[in-house]
Amino acid sequence: MKQISAKDIKDLCCGAAFLATGGGGDPYVSQLAAERLLEKHGPANLMAPEEIPDDFNVVSIGMVGAPTVTLEQLPTEDEAVKAFDAYEQQTGRKIDAVIPFEVGGGNSTIPLTVAAVRGVPCIDGDGMGRALPEAQMMTFPLYGVKPTPAVLMDSWGNSAVLHCNDPLTFEKHIRAMAVAMGGMISSAEHGMTGKQASEAAVPKTISFATKLGQLLRNHNGSIDAIESELISLFANTQYGAVKRLYTGKVVDSERKIIGGYDVGSAALQSFDANLEPMTLLIKNEYLVAKVGDQVVASVPDLICIVEQETSRPLNAERMRYGQRVAVFGIGCTHHYRTEAALKVTSPRAFGFDMDYVALEDIR
Amino acid sequence: MKQISAKDIKDLCCGAAFLATGGGGDPYVSQLAAERLLEKHGPANLMAPEEIPDDFNVVSIGMVGAPTVTLEQLPTEDEAVKAFDAYEQQTGRKIDAVIPFEVGGGNSTIPLTVAAVRGVPCIDGDGMGRALPEAQMMTFPLYGVKPTPAVLMDSWGNSAVLHCNDPLTFEKHIRAMAVAMGGMISSAEHGMTGKQASEAAVPKTISFATKLGQLLRNHNGSIDAIESELISLFANTQYGAVKRLYTGKVVDSERKIIGGYDVGSAALQSFDANLEPMTLLIKNEYLVAKVGDQVVASVPDLICIVEQETSRPLNAERMRYGQRVAVFGIGCTHHYRTEAALKVTSPRAFGFDMDYVALEDIR
Repeated sequence: MKQISAKDIKDLCCGAAFLATGGGGDPYVSQLAAERLLEKHGPANLMAPEEIPDDFNVVSIGMVGAPTVTLEQLPTEDEAVKAFDAYEQQTGRKIDAVIPFEVGGGNSTIPLTVAAVRGVPCIDGDGMGRALPEAQMMTFPLYGVKPTPAVLMDSWGNSAVLHCNDPLTFEKHIRAMAVAMGGMISSAEHGMTGKQASEAAVPKTISFATKLGQLLRNHNGSIDAIESELISLFANTQYGAVKRLYTGKVVDSERKIIGGYDVGSAALQSFDANLEPMTLLIKNEYLVAKVGDQVVASVPDLICIVEQETSRPLNAERMRYGQRVAVFGIGCTHHYRTEAALKVTSPRAFGFDMDYVALEDIR
Repeated sequence: MKQISAKDIKDLCCGAAFLATGGGGDPYVSQLAAERLLEKHGPANLMAPEEIPDDFNVVSIGMVGAPTVTLEQLPTEDEAVKAFDAYEQQTGRKIDAVIPFEVGGGNSTIPLTVAAVRGVPCIDGDGMGRALPEAQMMTFPLYGVKPTPAVLMDSWGNSAVLHCNDPLTFEKHIRAMAVAMGGMISSAEHGMTGKQASEAAVPKTISFATKLGQLLRNHNGSIDAIESELISLFANTQYGAVKRLYTGKVVDSERKIIGGYDVGSAALQSFDANLEPMTLLIKNEYLVAKVGDQVVASVPDLICIVEQETSRPLNAERMRYGQRVAVFGIGCTHHYRTEAALKVTSPRAFGFDMDYVALEDIR
């Protein structure tokens, strides 16, 4: 079993922010919290999906809400641990391992800190292989895992236990509570067996994000210099093709908090005056990228953005006028290539009037 | 111990609709459901507050949401019983008696049907002595009873268990869930000892509402003929003064569902052309009555409206242009005359820029 210690957290957060496609919450505050907690409680054990005993009681833990909120309302260190404890109390059963919802800012480090504080392993994998805004979009329900019982906890210690008949109802109820509880909450949910976790999880994403972050952070220069290294790093994973889609300057960016989500769009202008501008459509994550009228990548494929000159990932709530960025498209894992998965994660599932075309099939 | 059987339900619903000051939900559907369930399961035992053993486990049960919703989305018969069962399961303790939130349409019969179905007594009293739109306005929290754990149940069997630090947070969270769960839900909440229930409950309101309904229904003619009988009926209760405030025709009535409430206003025009019109301000219940600019009654005092020619109570969502009505003001019970109670139930608590003046002190 690998370990993740305080010194790995900056790399993990950087790589996870890349894979989070603009969402998953700002990584800075959760990075500081994770470093502090792993220094205090020791490293977290990272269990590969193939190592999980079939009868393990695996529970998914993370934060739910509008990422923008975390920029102003800092999360408390023990909220997710309280959710873990309340889940055990509610179900009357010990949790054997935790697993992240997604690789994204806070949601990749929070399960690690809970794992370290409570002395259980964290699965090296997650329920998205990226970040996505809604619960029914996770691989767990797509592989038959029930979302509830779910235990929700806010910063003040108020809690709620949800029991829902289906993933869409769960999404509706947890979203309503996230808004009522202040915009961002911790949730312990999607309890599953080890066998289910090993099938449903997108594997090795925590260790992969750490390697990816290492590459980006050690370089700390123009992304152009490490593009081929970046592409070869992805070659050993379950992700699909990696393509540079655009390079340009942010010329417009607007976001509103609607129903607990960050909803908006951004426009990029290429340094090549002959190229049409790129439009990004956003709902917490970068969901659709167009150049002019032409869709060049769409959800569930990943649209990942880094600052051109530093190679640092740029999450949506940090996007500002004038930033110079490089936009990558990355094919999603096989978990999202099925009809059932595309029904809840394709552009139509977000209200966009367009079919999903796999990144590999565009141009 | 008294009993309430199927044959009493029409009287109870009529009297409760009077005391509900326009809110509490439309009584018709819950009346039919209560008659059917009490015929099937036998009468409900009605326990007077002074009869409750001090160590009884008393839980308040009823529906929460926008009354308008019940006109179109009929409640299921077993939703409240499921909330009762889930509450027992959640707390690991048998419920000894149930108590209504309020005397209002469905909320006075639902606890009786749960009592009959589950074979426990229903307390002859309630947490308002009227209807009011928010949880922190109940007498229970005003007497120190904690609102949670609360178990919420919707028509499809989805549930939520809330734990909140204070009554205002509880109101915020349960309201969000009521909206997310379809607009109207059942809730088991405000668990208390028998001793607490006997202090906090507005006493004898279920049997009183039944007597009141008997008077109004047996008469079934102009309210003028029984006004003195109505007033003397109130004389033997904890309510204050009873005054006829206005008689006239509904000339305007508008209501919107905002945030899970029915919010709006209505205007009445007197048959006496010299009298200025009456304006009613509504949030689920009739909260403020003005004649011209002069406030003639305000919450927490009761504003009760009957159809002039039939003496039948008129709830807010049934108010239509052209109806001829009589408006009564009734002084609230001592539970709402304290500073702490007025802080959460006076007109200012509803956003109206006016102080409460006791009905007895107006004019």
